[in-house]
Amino acid sequence: MGDSTLLDELAVQATLARYCHRCDDADFAGVVALFTPDGVFTHGDRSVRGPEALLEYFQTMQGRPEQRGKHLMGNVVVRSDGDVARSVSDYVFFRFESQGLVPAIAGRYHDELVRLDGEWRIARRDAMRLNTPE
Amino acid sequence: MGDSTLLDELAVQATLARYCHRCDDADFAGVVALFTPDGVFTHGDRSVRGPEALLEYFQTMQGRPEQRGKHLMGNVVVRSDGDVARSVSDYVFFRFESQGLVPAIAGRYHDELVRLDGEWRIARRDAMRLNTPE
Amino acid sequence: MGDSTLLDELAVQATLARYCHRCDDADFAGVVALFTPDGVFTHGDRSVRGPEALLEYFQTMQGRPEQRGKHLMGNVVVRSDGDVARSVSDYVFFRFESQGLVPAIAGRYHDELVRLDGEWRIARRDAMRLNTPE
Repeated sequence: MGDSTLLDELAVQATLARYCHRCDDADFAGVVALFTPDGVFTHGDRSVRGPEALLEYFQTMQGRPEQRGKHLMGNVVVRSDGDVARSVSDYVFFRFESQGLVPAIAGRYHDELVRLDGEWRIARRDAMRLNTPE
Repeated sequence: MGDSTLLDELAVQATLARYCHRCDDADFAGVVALFTPDGVFTHGDRSVRGPEALLEYFQTMQGRPEQRGKHLMGNVVVRSDGDVARSVSDYVFFRFESQGLVPAIAGRYHDELVRLDGEWRIARRDAMRLNTPE
Repeated sequence: MGDSTLLDELAVQATLARYCHRCDDADFAGVVALFTPDGVFTHGDRSVRGPEALLEYFQTMQGRPEQRGKHLMGNVVVRSDGDVARSVSDYVFFRFESQGLVPAIAGRYHDELVRLDGEWRIARRDAMRLNTPE
């Protein structure tokens, strides 16, 4: 393992960071551009594949003004092997509610990424949401 | 400083990230496996050493369902030198209370890690908790 | 791109992490030492330049006990080119209010850094604050 693996791990982290930036900027075309052409996003029992479906999904789920906020990702672990990488990370999404900014959602991302034309793109992102303990 | 140092810094960050993942998954045996055989965890005036004591500590302190939540770590600075590394990082722990998800605890980790059989393990973690200003 | 670029990206991330540590430690001289001698900090319509002005600014804006808290930075993307680097990152600042710890502010940092005597220092930090959606 050497230089190229390190470059890949940092590049993967940058792709995942940009996902957060672009979600919060409501740049959903930019979010979709981080996925591969047949990239998949899953959340709960929803699974969405391909640029058109992804764009519609993000616009619907995150497009309204009251959904603007801040995705803060941390605890990123990347494993890359050649042109494929896997990552596990945690996130908290903050948004404004009547009492001010609140941590509305916390969860985990499981990602599969591939190198495509020299860039690391998301082939599959599973976004898990932490539920209230029973 | 070169390749190996960079690899070490990323590997240390991965160990610290896994600590958060495993705490939140209630995988306390997995948490303990991140420590060295005589690893120490301190929190306030508590100091716990060795796998058995650590396992009992984490099960007691974090084992109940109402303690499930999300440790989000950031601001990680790692210094490695050969087979020893030190790290400073910050964390916020979110959990569910009656009003929803709240940032229950914020603090800082000071870590000493050693390379053991090719893996970076925690020899000592001091977890500081931020207290309400007086 | 190789070893030196990777070293630079991790070193830049460490500088930005130390900014958070030192703010939260109320070590404002230490915060100012992370800037270049003509370093600029902007926040909203305020722009502050140079060590004396920066020190006074941070002491005034963050110096009071009730402003102690935790800056948690994540989503860091660094681009370095020789002795210059740019970074985009997100942050949430938690502090204690009557109900406990709250995410008081969320926002984004845009940074320009330069290598000075072998260290990465902040030439310009623009701190944006996320506002309540209308």
